[in-house]
Amino acid sequence: MSDTVSDTIARLRREVCQLHEQLTRWELVTWTSGNVSARVPGADLLVIKPSGVSYDELTPESMVVTTLDGNVVDGNHSPSSDTDAHAYVYRAMPHVNGVVHTHSAYATAWSARGESIPCVLTAMADEFGGEIPIGPFALIGGDDIGKGIVATLAGHRSPAVLMRNHGVFTIGASAKAAVKAAVMCEDVARTVHIARSGGALVPIEPEHIDALYERYQGVYGQR
Amino acid sequence: MSDTVSDTIARLRREVCQLHEQLTRWELVTWTSGNVSARVPGADLLVIKPSGVSYDELTPESMVVTTLDGNVVDGNHSPSSDTDAHAYVYRAMPHVNGVVHTHSAYATAWSARGESIPCVLTAMADEFGGEIPIGPFALIGGDDIGKGIVATLAGHRSPAVLMRNHGVFTIGASAKAAVKAAVMCEDVARTVHIARSGGALVPIEPEHIDALYERYQGVYGQR
Amino acid sequence: MSDTVSDTIARLRREVCQLHEQLTRWELVTWTSGNVSARVPGADLLVIKPSGVSYDELTPESMVVTTLDGNVVDGNHSPSSDTDAHAYVYRAMPHVNGVVHTHSAYATAWSARGESIPCVLTAMADEFGGEIPIGPFALIGGDDIGKGIVATLAGHRSPAVLMRNHGVFTIGASAKAAVKAAVMCEDVARTVHIARSGGALVPIEPEHIDALYERYQGVYGQR
Amino acid sequence: MSDTVSDTIARLRREVCQLHEQLTRWELVTWTSGNVSARVPGADLLVIKPSGVSYDELTPESMVVTTLDGNVVDGNHSPSSDTDAHAYVYRAMPHVNGVVHTHSAYATAWSARGESIPCVLTAMADEFGGEIPIGPFALIGGDDIGKGIVATLAGHRSPAVLMRNHGVFTIGASAKAAVKAAVMCEDVARTVHIARSGGALVPIEPEHIDALYERYQGVYGQR
Repeated sequence: MSDTVSDTIARLRREVCQLHEQLTRWELVTWTSGNVSARVPGADLLVIKPSGVSYDELTPESMVVTTLDGNVVDGNHSPSSDTDAHAYVYRAMPHVNGVVHTHSAYATAWSARGESIPCVLTAMADEFGGEIPIGPFALIGGDDIGKGIVATLAGHRSPAVLMRNHGVFTIGASAKAAVKAAVMCEDVARTVHIARSGGALVPIEPEHIDALYERYQGVYGQR
Repeated sequence: MSDTVSDTIARLRREVCQLHEQLTRWELVTWTSGNVSARVPGADLLVIKPSGVSYDELTPESMVVTTLDGNVVDGNHSPSSDTDAHAYVYRAMPHVNGVVHTHSAYATAWSARGESIPCVLTAMADEFGGEIPIGPFALIGGDDIGKGIVATLAGHRSPAVLMRNHGVFTIGASAKAAVKAAVMCEDVARTVHIARSGGALVPIEPEHIDALYERYQGVYGQR
Repeated sequence: MSDTVSDTIARLRREVCQLHEQLTRWELVTWTSGNVSARVPGADLLVIKPSGVSYDELTPESMVVTTLDGNVVDGNHSPSSDTDAHAYVYRAMPHVNGVVHTHSAYATAWSARGESIPCVLTAMADEFGGEIPIGPFALIGGDDIGKGIVATLAGHRSPAVLMRNHGVFTIGASAKAAVKAAVMCEDVARTVHIARSGGALVPIEPEHIDALYERYQGVYGQR
Repeated sequence: MSDTVSDTIARLRREVCQLHEQLTRWELVTWTSGNVSARVPGADLLVIKPSGVSYDELTPESMVVTTLDGNVVDGNHSPSSDTDAHAYVYRAMPHVNGVVHTHSAYATAWSARGESIPCVLTAMADEFGGEIPIGPFALIGGDDIGKGIVATLAGHRSPAVLMRNHGVFTIGASAKAAVKAAVMCEDVARTVHIARSGGALVPIEPEHIDALYERYQGVYGQR
């Protein structure tokens, strides 16, 4: 590895490790069940959580570096058992630099009914540009989950997909952006669930969804 | 600016910054989604959260001072993207010195059904003097949200309004009072949702609501 | 006051102050909405939370000592606006040395439907010896709330009562016992709500409730 | 006791004490309502929580050592009132080295309806290999609860059983594994409850459940 790539990997080990704190802080994960990864720019590599290690014990050193085929090239631990799915997404979607997977409760509940989350909140239009789509059932191991993620997201603006009977995968231009999408996905999954459990939802007009999405993606935050 | 106004702004930067801790402490916000502002007394100015900055990173210095038209006069950040709505409220309601906006889950769920929260709790009569009303759908940008807030609150004693498919705005004689209203709004939104999901609600007689509201507004707390 | 009573009051100021930490720790209260009191043994006095003071700011010194008619005899603050209800309970129930009041969400939700909580959990039989009863609607001020509490509890083994459209009052042989009852009341209110929202509850036979209650009251814990 | 057994007991006192922190961290317990035990390998003994002591006050020294008939052999406290049930499981299931009992809210809610939790999540197939079964109603005291646990688990791969109108018991090859099962049991109890409250669940094919269970039990985590 070149010095530059080594430095980048050292930085991403710290960044990916720290982003896992957001998964616990926003209560998206239980025990060891979710994971964050980042693509290593300029190399066909990714940095990901080790398998079955609790969030309190994660260190930058315990993160695992793999090829985009999921083979470990650096690290003392086995990588997340979801590494194949992360790797497939990086191979298929060159603009994606971060992937997050969780079983956050409300989003996963929609997935257990095989149901997309309808866009009835302005915050949802902002972040997801429409519904959060449901993907297929797929067994872990090999490329089935990755293929399901990519095929489903292809038809939507949403950076989040609900994999049926399983949980959430989110993508982003950075690992932090993918974490944000995972946090917002659970937030809107919960709010829309609560809303619908009390009566009929009021839809937002498609042109209003478009207007909200375009403004938020272009204007929100600091320049 | 006069020395007095500068001192007031310095104090309000600290106060508004600290009040954001109440938004996270009472779980009203997700990621960077809610904001607090205060009117600067004696000047046509307000102090508000910067846009898209996480709650852990807020400092008094990062707060933004704008005119009541939303133009930045002091601060290194862009102001909250909800500044237009806050500013409109201050222009239209001279007795209001604090405004809060959140997407707190249960209150926002009522808003996604376009439904007011009925007054079936004594704590709700105390703080809101009746139902928490639903306002119109309005797109962000310009004065539409502000107009919807002011027009809706005009017909109620409630310091909180549910903006349809969006979230909560609250007002107060101080920023702290507006924060309290936001906290209590989510609390009663949650309790009444849970209550109704289990069966028919028992109403409170209007004269009892009046009696509770008058006592609480006049007597509660320390003199 | 005799030295002994002064010492007792000093101890109870610390104890009542500290017990309020359990109200926040178990998420029974929002903003300043719940309160704990203790009877002063050997004197017609009680120690109670000051009105409208946030839980983070409570100190032993800020607790208020009142007569059993609710008149302040020691303290720099106004007492809780619920002092009349606490005082009535101490006057009417000589075996009660602690009273707690909360608006905890699930218990208050049952109260907004005017509904008792049925005894379908062994933990509920242990602590409450049957259903948690619903009391009448009563306005704050004077003895109406106190009378409703005492009249309702007279017919039950439960140390907790749901006051209609209002919240929970619990009693105990000590302030700590009343706090425990408030914590367990919310816990069973939540579990039974969740249970019933998913289908029909299985009742527990009355003789099993009796057996559980007698064992728990006699045997559980350290001697 | 031999030196070896004494050392093992000292280690297990620390381990069992610390594992109770996971019960509070994952919100499985209220007040003093849940407990963890470990078998002492090489001796007919177990280490368990003392009865009615709050989680904040637990120390390794306060843990209680009993025979597999529930008689105290070491410790200054009375053992958990659930000791009989733990002891019965160790007598009947030689491969079990850890037992956990909780009244976690969502799992206990399923138990109050006398209902098993259907396996509709891949994470549930991983950990439980199918549904989480419902056991009989049984009174505390004697072997009835223990017998109900063992008889119910005999027909399932699940390390968790819902005892009717009561709560959860989990088993494991270690106390930590039993704690993990208790944490995951509440997680899936909650997610499946939420899912079903919004509409019909999509089942997972039995052969997919088998494939997920076999992979997870064999491959997941660090070697």
